[in-house]
Amino acid sequence: MSLNDVLSRIDADLPDATDRLMALLRIPSISTDPAFKDACDRAADWLAADLNSLGIATQKRPTPGHPMVVGHLDGPGPHLLFYGHYDVQPVDPLALWDNNPFDPQIEETAKGRVIRGRGASDDKGQLMTFIEACRAWKAVHGSLPCKLTFFLEGEEESGSPSLVPFMQENAKELKSDIALICDTGLFESKTPAIVTMLRGLLGEEITITGPNVDLHSGMYGGVAINPIRVLSRVIAALHDDQGRIMVPGFYDGVAELSDEMEAQWQGLAFDHAGFLGDVGLSHPAGEQDRTPLEMIWSRPTCEVNGIWGGYTGDGFKTVLPAQAHAKVSFRLVGDQDPLVIRENFRAMVREMLPQDCEVSFEGHGASKASMTQTDDPSFEAARRALSEEWQVPAAYVGCGGSIPIAGFFQDILGTTPMLVGFGKDDDAIHSPNEKYDVESFHKGIRSWARILAALAT
Amino acid sequence: MSLNDVLSRIDADLPDATDRLMALLRIPSISTDPAFKDACDRAADWLAADLNSLGIATQKRPTPGHPMVVGHLDGPGPHLLFYGHYDVQPVDPLALWDNNPFDPQIEETAKGRVIRGRGASDDKGQLMTFIEACRAWKAVHGSLPCKLTFFLEGEEESGSPSLVPFMQENAKELKSDIALICDTGLFESKTPAIVTMLRGLLGEEITITGPNVDLHSGMYGGVAINPIRVLSRVIAALHDDQGRIMVPGFYDGVAELSDEMEAQWQGLAFDHAGFLGDVGLSHPAGEQDRTPLEMIWSRPTCEVNGIWGGYTGDGFKTVLPAQAHAKVSFRLVGDQDPLVIRENFRAMVREMLPQDCEVSFEGHGASKASMTQTDDPSFEAARRALSEEWQVPAAYVGCGGSIPIAGFFQDILGTTPMLVGFGKDDDAIHSPNEKYDVESFHKGIRSWARILAALAT
Repeated sequence: MSLNDVLSRIDADLPDATDRLMALLRIPSISTDPAFKDACDRAADWLAADLNSLGIATQKRPTPGHPMVVGHLDGPGPHLLFYGHYDVQPVDPLALWDNNPFDPQIEETAKGRVIRGRGASDDKGQLMTFIEACRAWKAVHGSLPCKLTFFLEGEEESGSPSLVPFMQENAKELKSDIALICDTGLFESKTPAIVTMLRGLLGEEITITGPNVDLHSGMYGGVAINPIRVLSRVIAALHDDQGRIMVPGFYDGVAELSDEMEAQWQGLAFDHAGFLGDVGLSHPAGEQDRTPLEMIWSRPTCEVNGIWGGYTGDGFKTVLPAQAHAKVSFRLVGDQDPLVIRENFRAMVREMLPQDCEVSFEGHGASKASMTQTDDPSFEAARRALSEEWQVPAAYVGCGGSIPIAGFFQDILGTTPMLVGFGKDDDAIHSPNEKYDVESFHKGIRSWARILAALAT
Repeated sequence: MSLNDVLSRIDADLPDATDRLMALLRIPSISTDPAFKDACDRAADWLAADLNSLGIATQKRPTPGHPMVVGHLDGPGPHLLFYGHYDVQPVDPLALWDNNPFDPQIEETAKGRVIRGRGASDDKGQLMTFIEACRAWKAVHGSLPCKLTFFLEGEEESGSPSLVPFMQENAKELKSDIALICDTGLFESKTPAIVTMLRGLLGEEITITGPNVDLHSGMYGGVAINPIRVLSRVIAALHDDQGRIMVPGFYDGVAELSDEMEAQWQGLAFDHAGFLGDVGLSHPAGEQDRTPLEMIWSRPTCEVNGIWGGYTGDGFKTVLPAQAHAKVSFRLVGDQDPLVIRENFRAMVREMLPQDCEVSFEGHGASKASMTQTDDPSFEAARRALSEEWQVPAAYVGCGGSIPIAGFFQDILGTTPMLVGFGKDDDAIHSPNEKYDVESFHKGIRSWARILAALAT
């Protein structure tokens, strides 16, 4: 049977597939930091060359930011688009990495072999699972079973500023039947999952200014306003004692879970003690009247992702700083409107400012939550394929992260997104010592081969 | 008259005196940063060589940190000790300096000529005023009018960790009649002043830890505790709405001003609008039932000097950090006990911690406030000398900054400290573009010459 030949080929080719991933991981394509612009370009070139080597006509396409990689291969129906991103998160704090984040290593661990390095899981490793499945299929059959479009982005970790304009300008070219997106994970690191509920994301950077110059706290301390104190008050006011978010109107558009979804989620028997225990915690810290799965999948959040001001080096400096800064992000659900929340948040901060203080804001991304309709039969076909590979029933789940692309496919192209990925909870994405299990990589490639077979008509 | 010859000599020697100061300013003696250890050593060598060239037997004396410079010259009574510090503050944010902080320049400004560079005012320029006065006196008379001890420190900007042990071990050698300390300023940049009331200083660095690794806020946001949020709540709780400090027992030992002092301070007609206006502020932000002079001289404070956590670089990173940090300092007055306040502060923070959070503290200095007794006739003599030089009655004032050395002279050596300095409010000490007016330097040297004459028996 042809699928079995492809799966055998995948097993035999795993060492070479791993080497190819390692080569891609060595390119430090940090999209948010302008110092790594050339590296992003090189990652795009590497992928375009690799796809062209499979006979997929692929080009690096310019944007005002980092380039898109777009490739096409004609074939029988359906028309599948594959989306992934080749950019990665910054690596700081660098001191906490055991190795150079861009000199990836295969390591034996108590939980099995892992590929260690920035981007191993998010998203280069995941992206390569689909490309390797195509490579194996092509090697065995000389062709692929579906019409394919590849659409690889280099700005996902920095808010995708070029994505919507590019999709709008190239809507006709990119429109397809299903958009396969590989940027999610297994549920509880073992159950294959198709994500059908994604939170939106709103990012805001706040700068509060008091005096027009850094002051000596001996001379001015006690009489001059300290912007760190003002910023702390603002942040402390964002939640009440029960974990509810206090931005006016914040919960407008937040719906309660359907009874059906609630029942399905209870069936998943989420091990929240283990999920928290893995990172040294024991207590769900969100809204106190919600379950942990609700906290991460179906409830909105407000988090401070960074704060800084004054002297932060070694030793002590009795400065009273002119400015204090914070990066705040909101995860959104249901029909929450990011632009309304942005305005309400800014108004709330302005209202809290004491005399002599000013605030400025910089917006970083604003995307609504998205929900996928799973009544397309492709979803049940993909779910069966996943269940066969992993020998455990695959699930429809929510996802705490924000993958705005899913909503864009729906809204801009009218293409149904299907989110399948093989990351594990302990992959440490966005953290030091990121890794991707060799099992995720290997069974991920095999999963895509099965899904291609299942979706081919 | 011999004093006039000295003053003329000072006037004639000003260009050379300025050159000598510039040479000292070129040595980047940042004491808090271990990278500048060698520079601190070079600054000590430079001063020891300069004092030896004046016939003052001077040695660099080792400590566990940066060296002390100690010199002696026998002579007629009284025995005067001069204290200054050769170390300087860090220079960040470096981008806000118009020039290299360690390539000092003479600049013409609308308010007159200034010497621009790190340490120009705090404290190298001030320290050199006394040495230059001695140089001129020696040049004119071949000797100095008093018995002198020089005691120059290299750790003042980093909490003076070696100072007390050194003073204790060398108490007999350092004991003198009066300790002249040149590290303060003119009142309102024009009235010469002797500081008789100094605030103490307590420094605390807090680290709050939540998860044991940086998390992705998409995956864990809403369910994992965010230490930045916890830290912000702690800082927001340090003051009430009226600016009062909420650490339990904080105001124990804080006395009200005497009627006499209150009257004298009202007589100074402090221009707080101008003081705040110079730095872009208009509203005194301390305890709302206190005058601005009380806020900076006689009331205790709590300030956050630095805060950091999570991603603070360009762009956005949706991290939920493992740790958040702050540097907090307290200015103390009257009989406030820094060690009791430290314990109460730490207990207050611990009590505010939610589940799954831990806090660690690092102490940075703990000194009580000090008050000088001005009934010694030397004080009136020095005040008259200052009034003659500046042609305006000199004042006894308070000082918002902390110069713990004053208390140490009193407590360890039984030596009366006399604090005289010539800094101006816009010197930008501890800030970018620090400067010292040429007027401060020139009339400062002349002031010391007059004080030496006045104190000599």
